[in-house]
Amino acid sequence: MKPLLITMGDPAGIGPEIIGRAFERGEARDCVVIADPAVMRRAGAAMTAVIDTPADLAAVPPGCLPVLVPPGLPAGLAELPWGRVDARCGAAAARCIEQAVRLVQAGDAAAIVTAPIHKEAFAAAGMPFPGHTEMLQSLAAAGGPLPPVRMMLANDELRVVLVTIHVALRAAIDALDFDAVLQTIRIAHAAGAGWGQRQPRIAVAGLNPHAGEGGRFGREEVEFIAPAVEAARAEGITVSGPFPPDTVFMRARRGEFDLVIAMTHDHGLIPVKYLGVEHGVNVTLGLPFVRTSPDHGTAFDIAGQERADPASLIAAIRFARSLLDGAGR
Amino acid sequence: MKPLLITMGDPAGIGPEIIGRAFERGEARDCVVIADPAVMRRAGAAMTAVIDTPADLAAVPPGCLPVLVPPGLPAGLAELPWGRVDARCGAAAARCIEQAVRLVQAGDAAAIVTAPIHKEAFAAAGMPFPGHTEMLQSLAAAGGPLPPVRMMLANDELRVVLVTIHVALRAAIDALDFDAVLQTIRIAHAAGAGWGQRQPRIAVAGLNPHAGEGGRFGREEVEFIAPAVEAARAEGITVSGPFPPDTVFMRARRGEFDLVIAMTHDHGLIPVKYLGVEHGVNVTLGLPFVRTSPDHGTAFDIAGQERADPASLIAAIRFARSLLDGAGR
Repeated sequence: MKPLLITMGDPAGIGPEIIGRAFERGEARDCVVIADPAVMRRAGAAMTAVIDTPADLAAVPPGCLPVLVPPGLPAGLAELPWGRVDARCGAAAARCIEQAVRLVQAGDAAAIVTAPIHKEAFAAAGMPFPGHTEMLQSLAAAGGPLPPVRMMLANDELRVVLVTIHVALRAAIDALDFDAVLQTIRIAHAAGAGWGQRQPRIAVAGLNPHAGEGGRFGREEVEFIAPAVEAARAEGITVSGPFPPDTVFMRARRGEFDLVIAMTHDHGLIPVKYLGVEHGVNVTLGLPFVRTSPDHGTAFDIAGQERADPASLIAAIRFARSLLDGAGR
Repeated sequence: MKPLLITMGDPAGIGPEIIGRAFERGEARDCVVIADPAVMRRAGAAMTAVIDTPADLAAVPPGCLPVLVPPGLPAGLAELPWGRVDARCGAAAARCIEQAVRLVQAGDAAAIVTAPIHKEAFAAAGMPFPGHTEMLQSLAAAGGPLPPVRMMLANDELRVVLVTIHVALRAAIDALDFDAVLQTIRIAHAAGAGWGQRQPRIAVAGLNPHAGEGGRFGREEVEFIAPAVEAARAEGITVSGPFPPDTVFMRARRGEFDLVIAMTHDHGLIPVKYLGVEHGVNVTLGLPFVRTSPDHGTAFDIAGQERADPASLIAAIRFARSLLDGAGR
C-alpha cells in the first residue's frame, strides 16, 4: 500500500505533538509527515528523517519520524510561542495541506490525515477557507468546478453526514433544498462501500422539531426533505426518514441505522461528541482521495505541555487505512 | 406532604398502563390518579378506589389505585380502540389536566405528573395547544398574562432548559432575543433551588456552529446571547457562555456545568435523548406549581400490549417529589 500523509497542522497547536506520539506508539508506521522538521523536534520527535518523496519511506530507519518538507514554509516556526495565533503558522499549515494534495493527486500517496489548523491563523495568512474541508474541495477542483463534498463525523457507535456545515444557522436553513439533501444521500450511500457496506441503512434527520409534525412546525420536511428521500429510494438507496432529530441519533446508536444525515452542523455533531471526543474522526466524503482528521481543534491552551491525547488522531489514521482497505486501494 | 396528582393522558396510549405499573411497583403511593376508572381497569389496574378529593387518599385501602374522576369526561372511553387518534380521547386527556390544575391551584395537591397526550387527538378535541406545556401555562394564567415558562429535560447526567420549543426552526430563530435568553437564565437559576442548588452552574449554548466564531457564522451570539449572559452575571447568577453547541453538552455531562440552556428544541433534546429515553424527565419551569412528565409520547404502536416501560414515568414521579422536598413543600 502507498503511504498515508499526515499534515502537521498549526505549528503552535497540539498537532505536531500528537503526531509524534502516534508515531511513538507504532500507529503511524506507514505514514509520512508533511511538516517542518524543527517544529516536529520541538514537539518531542526524537529523530526525524527528511525525505524527498513518499516512496523514500521504505528507506527510513525504524524509530525515525519520516518528514517531507513542503515548499514555501516560513522560517523560524519552531521559535514561535505555543498557543498563539500567528499568520506564519497559518501559512505553514496551508503549505503542508497543499503539498499533501499534490502528492496524493500525483499518485504518490494513498490518503491524507490532517492535524488541526487554527482558523484565525489561517485567515491571518490570507487563506479564504473556514476549514480544511473547503480548502481540500478547492484544491481538488484545481480551478474547475468544485466537487460536491460532505463532512462525515464518525465514532465507534455513530456515523453522521452533514448537509450544511460552517455557516450561520439561518444561512444553513436557506441553503437547504431538494438537491442538497439528495446529493448528501448519494454521497453518504457511496461512502458505505469504503467501509464494506454497499447498502448502508441511511436515516435522514428532519430540520424542525418532531420533523415538522406534518407541516405544523415548519414545511421543509414536506416540501423537499421527504421528496429527496423518496427520490433516493427510487435510485435503489436504502434510506428512510425524515425522522425527528431528537431521537434518530439514539436509534442509530442502538443499531437501527448505519448512518444518519443531519441538516445542520450541530444537530449532527452534538450526538457524535456527547460521549467524548477522544475517538471521533472527521472524514471528508466526495473528494477524489481519502481524507480523515481528528475530531478536535488545535487546543492552544495545552499545546506544548505534553498533555495532548493522540487518540482521535490515531482513530483518524486507522479509519483512513480501513477506507483504503475497503476500497481495495 | 400533600398528594401528587397523575393525569392519565390519552386513554388510547400507554399512559394508563404505565401509571398502573408504577403503582404496582410501589412508586406511586402518595399519588392520586386523575382518570376514568374504566380506562384504568382496562389498562390493567386490578382495583380502583374512586375518591372525591385528594385528601381522601388516606382512606384508600392498600393495593387500591386511588382515582379521582374529573368533570366532563366523554362516555365509553374504555371501549375505544387502542392506538387510534380520537377526539374523545383528546377531550378526556384535557379534562384530566384541567382538573389537576384546579386541585393544585386550590392547595389540595402538591404537584402534577402528566402521562402522555397525543397532539392530534388533542387538536381534534379543539384544544389549541401544541403540548402540555402551553396548556398548563394557559391554565395557570387563568385569563391573566401568561407566566413565562420553560421546558427542562433532565436525566441522571444532564439537565437542559430550552429557550424555544414547538415551532419551526426558522420561527425559533426569529423568536430569540435578549429578553428570551435572559428570562430563561433567570428561570433556570431559580429552578436550581428546587433540587437544592441555590447557585447552579449554568452554561448557555450558542445558536450557530462554533457559537458563531465571533460573528463569522451568525451574529446572534454577539448581538444578544452574550449580552444576556453578562446581564445575568451582573444579577449574581452563576452563568457562562455562549459556548459552541456541539461540545457544551458533553462538558456538562462530564460535570463542568449543572445545567445547559439550549436555544432550540433539538439542540437540547438530542443529547438528553441520545443515551435512551428510559430515564428522561420533562419539567415545566416557571409555573406556580411543580409539574413533571415522562420524556416520551403515547406510543400508540404498543399501547394495550403490556409492553410499555414505566421507567420514565417513575423517574418523573420521583423528580417531582424531590423538587417538593427541595422547596420544603
